[in-house]
Amino acid sequence: MTLEAALKPGDTIGVLGGGQLGRMIAMAAARLGLKTHVFSHHPGEPACQVSAAATVAEWTDEAALARFAEAVDVVTYEFENVPAATAAFLAARKPVRPGPLALEKTQDRLVEKDFLRGLGIPTAPYAAIDNAGALARHIGQLGRPAILKTRRFGYDGKGQFALREGSDVGAAFRALGGAPCILEGFVAFEREVSVIGARGLDGAFAAFDVCENEHENHILSLTRAPAHMAPETAAEAMEITHKILDALDYVGVIAVEMFLVAETDPAGVRRERVVVNEIAPRVHNSGHWTTDGAETSQFEQHVRAIAGWPLGSPKRRGRIEMRNLIGDQVEQWRALLTEPGACLHLYGKAESRPGRKMGHVTRVYP
Amino acid sequence: MTLEAALKPGDTIGVLGGGQLGRMIAMAAARLGLKTHVFSHHPGEPACQVSAAATVAEWTDEAALARFAEAVDVVTYEFENVPAATAAFLAARKPVRPGPLALEKTQDRLVEKDFLRGLGIPTAPYAAIDNAGALARHIGQLGRPAILKTRRFGYDGKGQFALREGSDVGAAFRALGGAPCILEGFVAFEREVSVIGARGLDGAFAAFDVCENEHENHILSLTRAPAHMAPETAAEAMEITHKILDALDYVGVIAVEMFLVAETDPAGVRRERVVVNEIAPRVHNSGHWTTDGAETSQFEQHVRAIAGWPLGSPKRRGRIEMRNLIGDQVEQWRALLTEPGACLHLYGKAESRPGRKMGHVTRVYP
Repeated sequence: MTLEAALKPGDTIGVLGGGQLGRMIAMAAARLGLKTHVFSHHPGEPACQVSAAATVAEWTDEAALARFAEAVDVVTYEFENVPAATAAFLAARKPVRPGPLALEKTQDRLVEKDFLRGLGIPTAPYAAIDNAGALARHIGQLGRPAILKTRRFGYDGKGQFALREGSDVGAAFRALGGAPCILEGFVAFEREVSVIGARGLDGAFAAFDVCENEHENHILSLTRAPAHMAPETAAEAMEITHKILDALDYVGVIAVEMFLVAETDPAGVRRERVVVNEIAPRVHNSGHWTTDGAETSQFEQHVRAIAGWPLGSPKRRGRIEMRNLIGDQVEQWRALLTEPGACLHLYGKAESRPGRKMGHVTRVYP
Repeated sequence: MTLEAALKPGDTIGVLGGGQLGRMIAMAAARLGLKTHVFSHHPGEPACQVSAAATVAEWTDEAALARFAEAVDVVTYEFENVPAATAAFLAARKPVRPGPLALEKTQDRLVEKDFLRGLGIPTAPYAAIDNAGALARHIGQLGRPAILKTRRFGYDGKGQFALREGSDVGAAFRALGGAPCILEGFVAFEREVSVIGARGLDGAFAAFDVCENEHENHILSLTRAPAHMAPETAAEAMEITHKILDALDYVGVIAVEMFLVAETDPAGVRRERVVVNEIAPRVHNSGHWTTDGAETSQFEQHVRAIAGWPLGSPKRRGRIEMRNLIGDQVEQWRALLTEPGACLHLYGKAESRPGRKMGHVTRVYP
């Protein structure tokens, strides 16, 4: 690590994206004396409300990007669908952390799966689908149920189509607009877990304890830490995360979502393993518990990493539960303010809409 | 409490003053989904870096004050020397919390002492000093050492002159510019302690455990919580704080600085009592430990109070130590980032100067 590559207090972090993840990065940066400059598409977004500066422009606005690069000391993102050209433009001017390689490997589900397979990391069985014919062919091999997903721009269940017995294969492909897809075989998992890991500029690795996640309507609703799993399986999940970070020469926080698969063998012995579902090259909703539940939050950890500073301790403070406040669940705010031990986080979004993440609440049990 | 008087998420808190206290109020407000609009004299001040909006103007700029009042839902301050006319101008337009009465009673040391005496709360012996003759007369009664202080605008030991044996009384009065003063008799204290208390819009009271403070060159250097004192003395300190808050019909967080006086009577029994030194009608440096060391920070508590929301739990998390980083002590930041358990807070000040508060670090011991 060169000293030139490290920030000092008073320096400015440029964040691509103005949502709640950028907001919480900005707040963690501020605690450490760093300023944040947000690049977003709309004024007044959650992150803009707590940042020293904001540039409101499109990803393709090179004049705005150049001014933004000039004004910041490092660039990061809260959102993995930053166009490759935008990332490259910025990377030519200022350090972009995590680097463009992480975006390249995670923006496209097929590229991501191939990358994982190349590292020997277990994934669901999958096949590239470019037309309805390929889908008909592969569904036979992978079996049903299976999930057809667009290769790019999916989140919270968007861009997905479940193929069950009797589902019309042609309709599935058309429903996703005929975009390049990936077909993923079904994994009979016991629970969904994730690892929020971090890698410093010096290559140091740290990870928070594996947590387990519950979704409603494809949107994360509940995270519990630690996850219910055998210590050796948790260690395997950590090792996988470490391997991914090293392979990407990663700097910052990453989220690796996994399926926990448990089988009981004929002798009655329970065997667990993890299968990687998805990588998010950024801070992640399933890491929000760390703000109140760990010695260092995922946001501070990300800031430390991209600033070229030493990683903080990921030690957990107790048994933690994080619930998202989605849509009108945010109306619980008043009751939550009176609940002993509940720690409320609201994102400053003006309007609540169904499925919109409005805030979250953590509860830490000793 | 009327519902009209309470804020809702998305509303805006106007903060008078742009320093680190305003900064930490803004960050606590943001976590709860509230926006902050800072009124300060210089752009880019610590609080401006984390706020949704800033008005940069003088206290006397009524056009700017009117626009500011229009843009916010409640007004608070991080600094007790807001001119009375400014507070009155704003109070005619929006709720000012704590109210102008708190400013009136705490901006002038003589008024403050009279107010405390009126409540039957012990203070150091004192006398009003308007000229050198009065000083000569009263020093005879109060004895030496004694401290001559300007009635207004003193902080961190500024506007003070210690009168010891042999000190020239005329020189003391001239040193303070001939301003109206108060002469305070010496209190032989064992330690300095403070109570950070809060009162809600509904009159509810909460206080953090009494903490003890050490100063260097009249500037707070170290706070420890809890203070070393008998439980009944701590209870007395709480009661005094509660009485002050009620008398001021206060809304928000207050700091009451006290001397702990301990005497051993002829029978060998230790007797403790507290004597109030000073009131600060705002969040306070000696409450910074609460951010990492209590279930609710003083900043969140202040936000809850002025928003008309229920107060949070002030429960302490362990034994806590808070050290200020003053002047070039801020250079310790790099070492502090690697120290297990140390929690670093930097204020985003561009330039370090001797005596300037640049940040602080807390350490929580289980």
